[in-house]
Amino acid sequence: MRPPTEIKYGLPAAAEVAGMTGREILQAIIDGKLPQAPISQTMSFWITEVGDGFAAFEGQPGGHLLNPMGSVHGGWVLTLIDSAGGCAGHSLLPVGVGYTTIETKANFARPITEDSARVRAEARVVAQGRQIISAEAKVLSSDGKVLAHGTSTIMTLGNTK
Amino acid sequence: MRPPTEIKYGLPAAAEVAGMTGREILQAIIDGKLPQAPISQTMSFWITEVGDGFAAFEGQPGGHLLNPMGSVHGGWVLTLIDSAGGCAGHSLLPVGVGYTTIETKANFARPITEDSARVRAEARVVAQGRQIISAEAKVLSSDGKVLAHGTSTIMTLGNTK
Amino acid sequence: MRPPTEIKYGLPAAAEVAGMTGREILQAIIDGKLPQAPISQTMSFWITEVGDGFAAFEGQPGGHLLNPMGSVHGGWVLTLIDSAGGCAGHSLLPVGVGYTTIETKANFARPITEDSARVRAEARVVAQGRQIISAEAKVLSSDGKVLAHGTSTIMTLGNTK
Amino acid sequence: MRPPTEIKYGLPAAAEVAGMTGREILQAIIDGKLPQAPISQTMSFWITEVGDGFAAFEGQPGGHLLNPMGSVHGGWVLTLIDSAGGCAGHSLLPVGVGYTTIETKANFARPITEDSARVRAEARVVAQGRQIISAEAKVLSSDGKVLAHGTSTIMTLGNTK
Repeated sequence: MRPPTEIKYGLPAAAEVAGMTGREILQAIIDGKLPQAPISQTMSFWITEVGDGFAAFEGQPGGHLLNPMGSVHGGWVLTLIDSAGGCAGHSLLPVGVGYTTIETKANFARPITEDSARVRAEARVVAQGRQIISAEAKVLSSDGKVLAHGTSTIMTLGNTK
Repeated sequence: MRPPTEIKYGLPAAAEVAGMTGREILQAIIDGKLPQAPISQTMSFWITEVGDGFAAFEGQPGGHLLNPMGSVHGGWVLTLIDSAGGCAGHSLLPVGVGYTTIETKANFARPITEDSARVRAEARVVAQGRQIISAEAKVLSSDGKVLAHGTSTIMTLGNTK
Repeated sequence: MRPPTEIKYGLPAAAEVAGMTGREILQAIIDGKLPQAPISQTMSFWITEVGDGFAAFEGQPGGHLLNPMGSVHGGWVLTLIDSAGGCAGHSLLPVGVGYTTIETKANFARPITEDSARVRAEARVVAQGRQIISAEAKVLSSDGKVLAHGTSTIMTLGNTK
Repeated sequence: MRPPTEIKYGLPAAAEVAGMTGREILQAIIDGKLPQAPISQTMSFWITEVGDGFAAFEGQPGGHLLNPMGSVHGGWVLTLIDSAGGCAGHSLLPVGVGYTTIETKANFARPITEDSARVRAEARVVAQGRQIISAEAKVLSSDGKVLAHGTSTIMTLGNTK
């Protein structure tokens, strides 16, 4: 696990990802050959693993994420689930096929505090149709407890037949 | 609409909100008597209106919110919906009653870009039971188009009879 | 409101709906020129109104719908929401365009009993994209209370450009 | 797997379930000592297995379940997911504790036809709080393909401390 201070953030140029599959793009981000997205810097989370129909992220809770009640905002967890679910689907897409997320839904099981240890979000594709892919995601505490879980649905764009 | 540069961010002390209803707490945040939450600074959104079973937020898209594909991350929209839905429910709670969000689910209808104008998220309570409150929220563009919509479910905590 | 005993149930022949828009098909079912679906007989509900991006159903609770705890099964309410949401979307589709439902999600607000009066489910399209349409639905008691509410997401099939 | 013709349907008397845990009640239904619910007869599905935080159902597609487009209505799948998710949670409840389902959400992955073989719905509890339990469910074809998947959230009632 690389410390987040070493991570580069930004957007890849179109030419940098041309000819790459979804999984190759995500692996290049993990390997530091492509930048993590700007939102990852803002919200202190980053992709750490990708497989076929699988993606994992880590996130670092902190004071910048607190809601008015003093715990980490549910929106942070929703962002992790939306990211992991979308990337799990993206990992299955061939060269030249993009996607858009149609909807995301999640349950909050346990509170996260400013001082909580790093969390892990992992998502797996459950069903893949011609255009629609759905993935289930879990956000886990450092000791493996389920903090939240949810589902994202994506639609592929372009080059579908 | 106050410019976001004038907004104070932070957490209220427990003594500051003692004896206040949910709606009074939220109105005090809007009036600048209590700070907006830290997440609001991080993700550039803030509460602007509260009523009985109603809450509205504004959010400012920007480069710090972009996903790897270069558009505003769905997690930002989910955070707005989760915030507006939770606060719509909170507005109905009497003194001494808190809440936790059980789940949030949302559909993404239109993309938001770095350069999009400020968006408005508004939520209304649809059903209120003894412990469970559900609210529907919409995120609207500056010209009133639905960018996303969703539902949050909260459970009240403490002082329920 | 026609009594359900007068309703015909079955499936239309393909030739019967050829050349009709979604709204025309649904209006023909309401008018009794086409049959209500078989599931409508099994679960005692039927479509009663259609507009542009709008559909309403009525449902008759009864002993055949009870769950093990003796109240009407949540699946009945989910079926009403799924039906109303799908038909609200269908009402916007031109001749020759079909649809499939991608996902449905709903909150249960109040219990329904065997002896509850007829309920009304109404759905309105909230967002319509090139292929994706989402609609919000409410199930209302005879005195207008919200019994449940939810959202369905459909994808259009065929003849899309 | 017992043929559905041998199944008794109805509601247990309160005295019949007094002193039984949730799991014991569900096992008694599976064993035929208590009846399957009336909705099970109407919609041709029945509970077949229960464990700690686990429940499985079987369902028999048929002509009585068809939507206007001639395939099995999504409401049937939603009912299976709602049932399996609720019973997975119920299996964890001690004597004298009931529950109500707060919300259910599901994705449809593959169509089911009138002639499809029996399907299996299985649900597992993912998170259990003091009052809230959430369970993920999958509906599987006879050859193990995911037909649909979803999540139910229940709230316990009575005797909670």
